[in-house]
Amino acid sequence: MNTIEAYRNHLGEMAKYMSALSVLGWDQETYMPPKGVLARSGVRGLLSKKMSELLISDDLGKYLAELRQADKLTEAERASVYRVGKRHDRNRAIPPELVEERSIAQSQAQAAWVAARKASDFKAFQPHLEKMVGYARKFAELYGYEEHPYDALIEEFEPGMTCRKLKAVIDPLRAELVPFLRRLMDEGTKPDDSLLEGTFDVDTQRRMSRRALEIILYDFEAGGLADVAHPFTTTIGPGDVRVTNRYLEKRLLSGLFGALHEGGHGLYNQGIPAELFTLGLSRGSSNGIHESQSRMIENQVGRSLPFWKFFQPVLAEFFPQFRKTKPEALYAAANVVTPSFIRVEADEVTYNFHIMLRFEIEAGLIDKSIEVAELPRLWNDAMKRYLGVVPPNDARGVLQDVHWSQGSFGYFPSYMLGNLYAAQMLATIKKQLPNLDAAIEAGDLKPLVGWLRENVHRYGAMYEPQEMMKRVTAEELNPAYFVRYVKEKFGAIYKL
Amino acid sequence: MNTIEAYRNHLGEMAKYMSALSVLGWDQETYMPPKGVLARSGVRGLLSKKMSELLISDDLGKYLAELRQADKLTEAERASVYRVGKRHDRNRAIPPELVEERSIAQSQAQAAWVAARKASDFKAFQPHLEKMVGYARKFAELYGYEEHPYDALIEEFEPGMTCRKLKAVIDPLRAELVPFLRRLMDEGTKPDDSLLEGTFDVDTQRRMSRRALEIILYDFEAGGLADVAHPFTTTIGPGDVRVTNRYLEKRLLSGLFGALHEGGHGLYNQGIPAELFTLGLSRGSSNGIHESQSRMIENQVGRSLPFWKFFQPVLAEFFPQFRKTKPEALYAAANVVTPSFIRVEADEVTYNFHIMLRFEIEAGLIDKSIEVAELPRLWNDAMKRYLGVVPPNDARGVLQDVHWSQGSFGYFPSYMLGNLYAAQMLATIKKQLPNLDAAIEAGDLKPLVGWLRENVHRYGAMYEPQEMMKRVTAEELNPAYFVRYVKEKFGAIYKL
Repeated sequence: MNTIEAYRNHLGEMAKYMSALSVLGWDQETYMPPKGVLARSGVRGLLSKKMSELLISDDLGKYLAELRQADKLTEAERASVYRVGKRHDRNRAIPPELVEERSIAQSQAQAAWVAARKASDFKAFQPHLEKMVGYARKFAELYGYEEHPYDALIEEFEPGMTCRKLKAVIDPLRAELVPFLRRLMDEGTKPDDSLLEGTFDVDTQRRMSRRALEIILYDFEAGGLADVAHPFTTTIGPGDVRVTNRYLEKRLLSGLFGALHEGGHGLYNQGIPAELFTLGLSRGSSNGIHESQSRMIENQVGRSLPFWKFFQPVLAEFFPQFRKTKPEALYAAANVVTPSFIRVEADEVTYNFHIMLRFEIEAGLIDKSIEVAELPRLWNDAMKRYLGVVPPNDARGVLQDVHWSQGSFGYFPSYMLGNLYAAQMLATIKKQLPNLDAAIEAGDLKPLVGWLRENVHRYGAMYEPQEMMKRVTAEELNPAYFVRYVKEKFGAIYKL
Repeated sequence: MNTIEAYRNHLGEMAKYMSALSVLGWDQETYMPPKGVLARSGVRGLLSKKMSELLISDDLGKYLAELRQADKLTEAERASVYRVGKRHDRNRAIPPELVEERSIAQSQAQAAWVAARKASDFKAFQPHLEKMVGYARKFAELYGYEEHPYDALIEEFEPGMTCRKLKAVIDPLRAELVPFLRRLMDEGTKPDDSLLEGTFDVDTQRRMSRRALEIILYDFEAGGLADVAHPFTTTIGPGDVRVTNRYLEKRLLSGLFGALHEGGHGLYNQGIPAELFTLGLSRGSSNGIHESQSRMIENQVGRSLPFWKFFQPVLAEFFPQFRKTKPEALYAAANVVTPSFIRVEADEVTYNFHIMLRFEIEAGLIDKSIEVAELPRLWNDAMKRYLGVVPPNDARGVLQDVHWSQGSFGYFPSYMLGNLYAAQMLATIKKQLPNLDAAIEAGDLKPLVGWLRENVHRYGAMYEPQEMMKRVTAEELNPAYFVRYVKEKFGAIYKL
C-alpha cells in the first residue's frame, strides 16, 4: 500500500468514527429518551477519543510529512494534505491532559451557565467564564499566532481570518449600518406585520417546512427532517445529511425560515462528493462559508419578493387564511427591522451588530484588555451604542449565548461573515444568472442551487474561505456588497 | 487497578461499542434515508471489528484466567466470568479470516435469498444455502461438541440446550398437539372473527399501541416506539431500550399484538440493572427466555379474556365501532386457530409445528443426513404431516425465513422454547399471585411485571436458561405446562 492509500484509509477510519458520532449526536437531540443521557455521554466520549487519537497519531504525521513532499497528488489530495495537516498540527499542539481538563471544566461551565441564565445571575457564571477564558488564552498560546492571540482561535472556525482583517471589514460596515439603522427607525415606514398574528398548528407548519425543503431541492432520499429544541444540520455520511427544525405556534415564519436556513446548510453538505469523505474534506470551507449558504437560502431567497410571489399560494394551501393576502404584504411583514436584545431573533439589518459587540469583547478577553467582571457593563454599553436598546437583565444580555460556556471563542464572527459572503456571492450569481429572480418567482430553484453546487458545494473543504471567495466572486471579501444589498432592500421596504 | 476493575473497564468499553452499534442499527431501520446505506455498512463494520477484537483479545483472556481462580467475586461477577468466558472461548475458536469470509458469503446469500424468494426460485438460492450450511458445519466443528454438531450451534442462542434435550421436549409435545389440532379442526367450533374485518387508520393504531405499551408498564422515559418494516427491540444502553412496530390497515390486531410482543422484550431489557452492562450481562438469559417474556405479554396476557375485559373499552376509544362489542367476542376472535404456511402469522396452537419442522431440517443439514437439494420436498412433506397443508410455492414455504441466509442455524428452537418457558413460568406465577387475572382485568399489570422484574429481569444474563427455569419455577423445562395451557384455553374457545 502506498502512502496516499494508507493516508486515505486512515482518514476513512476517522470518517467512520465521525459518522457514528454524528448519528449519536442526532439521535440524542431527536429521539433519545431522557434516561439514556448518562450512558450516551460515555459512548460519545469513547468514540471521540478514538477519533482524536487518529487525528494526532504519529502515523498520520508520517503520511503528512511524506505527502507534503509528493508531487503527483490530485488537487483534492493536495488540499487534503494542507487542511488535514493544519488540524493535525493544531491538535498535537495541545497536551491531551489539557484537553481532558478543559472538557471537564466545560461540562461544569455549561451547567453553571444554564443555571445562571435562568436566574439572570452573571456573578454565578463569572468564575466559570474566567476559567474558560483562561483555557482559551492558554490554547491560543499553544496554537501560536503572528499578531493577535485571538487569531489563533478564529483559525478554528474561519481559517486565514485575523483580528486585523476582521476590523478592516467591521469598520466600514459599522460606519454604514449604524446611521442607516437610525434612518430606518427615524424616517422609515415600518411595514404592517399584524397579518402574521395568530396561532398556527404545529403539525401543519411541519408539513409546510417539508414542502419548503422540497422547493429548495433538498434531497429527502439523502436526508430527513426531525424536531429538536435547537435546530442544526448534521452530516452522517455521503448520502445522509439531516436537517432539524422547531416550530412555535405563535410565530409562523420562525419555523419556515428555520427550515430554509437548515436547508441551506443541508444543500451544501448534500453537494459534497463522497470521495472527499476519505480525504477529511467533507465539511464545508469554513463556518462562515457554511453560514453563507444557509443565510442565502433563508434571507436572500426566503425573505425576497420573488420567493413570496411563488410561496404565497403554497402558504395558503397549508394556512387558508392567507388565500387573499398579497405576496408584497407577506414580503414586507417578513422584513420588519427591530433592534432587539436577542441575537438569534435579529433581522438582517441589526444582526451584524450583535456580532460586532461579541467580537470586541472576545478579542479584549483574549488579549487581556478586558476582564470578565466588566462584561455586563461593557455588553450593555455596546447594545446602547449599536442598537439603542439596553437589555432589562443579564439573561437577555450577556448570558444569552451558549458559546462561551463551551469555550467557543472566535466562533461568532462566522455568523457575520456568512451574511457578507452571501451578499457578495449573490452579486456574482445575479450577474451570471440574470433571470434568477424570475426563476425563483416560478418556484424553480434549479439555476441557483445548480450554480452553488458547481461553484461552492462540490469542493467541500478543499479551499479556505479567502480562496473560495476569490474563486467564486473573483474578489476578496468586500462588505460593500452586503451594505448595498441591505440599503436597497430595506430602503425600499421602509420607503426611505 | 486490580483485575476485576480492569475486566470491568474492558467490558465497559465493549458495552460502549455495542451501544453505538445498537443506535446505528436502530437508526438504519427507522430514520436512515435510502442513500445512506452504503456508508453505514462501513461504519458498522468498523465498530463491529473493534468490539470483536476486544472480545477475543489476549487481555480479556488473561483477566478471565485470573478471575476463574479468584474467590472473592460477587455472584454477578462470577456469572460474568462464566458467560463472558464462554463467548471469549467460542469466538477465539474461529479464525478471523473465516469470520470475514463467511460475512462476505452471508451478504451474497442474503441478497440471493431476497431475489429467490421474490421469484419463488429455490434453485437460485440453493448454492448459497449450501455455502452457508458448509460454514455452519465448519463452525460447529471449531466450537466443538459432545454429542451432535448441532449442539455447538444451539449453544449460541440457547446455552446448555442440545439436540437430545430438544427431542425429549418435542416428542411429547408433538404427541399431544398433533391430535389436539386435529380435534380442534374436526370437532371444534371456530370463533367468528368477521368482527375484525375492516380498514383501520394506521396513525390511530400507532397511538393505540402506545397506550398498550403504557398499560404493560413499558417505560417511555427509557425508550420509544418507532415504525419499521420488521419489528424488533433494541437495547441502546441502561435507560434506553427501544421497541419498534408495524401496522397493517386491514389487520387491526397484528399491530396491537406486535406492540405487546416487543413490549415484552422491552420490559425484560428495561429491568436489567445498569451494573450488569459493565459485566457483559446486559442481554437476557437466552433467546428462548427472552422470547418467553414477549410471548407471555403478547399471548398469555394480550390474548387472554381478562385482558380483553379491560381492553375492549380502550379499543373503543380508538376505534368507536367496537363500543358495543363484547370482550368475550374479541377474545375469541383473537384466538382463531388456522393451520397456515407462514410461521410469523401462526397462532399459539400451530406455531410450534413450524419450529419442529425447521429443527428437524436444521439438525439433518448439520449432521449431513439431509442435503440442501432435498429441502423443498422435505419441507412440504413435514407441513403436510404437521399442519395438513402444503404451501403453493417455495416463497411461502422453504424460502419464507431470513435466518438461513444469515447463517443462523440453531436459532429457531428459541421461538418454541419461549412458548414453553412462558407457560411454565405463568403456572408458577398464578400459584404465587392468585389474583393475577383480576388485576389484569382491572388493567393493573404491576403484580405481573413486578414479579417478572424480581424473578427474571433483574438477573440479566447471569443465569443460563436451565438454571433460570429452576430458580423461577423450581423445575426443569417441562412441556406439559404448555400442553395444559393450550388445551384448556383452546378447548374452551373451540367448545370441545
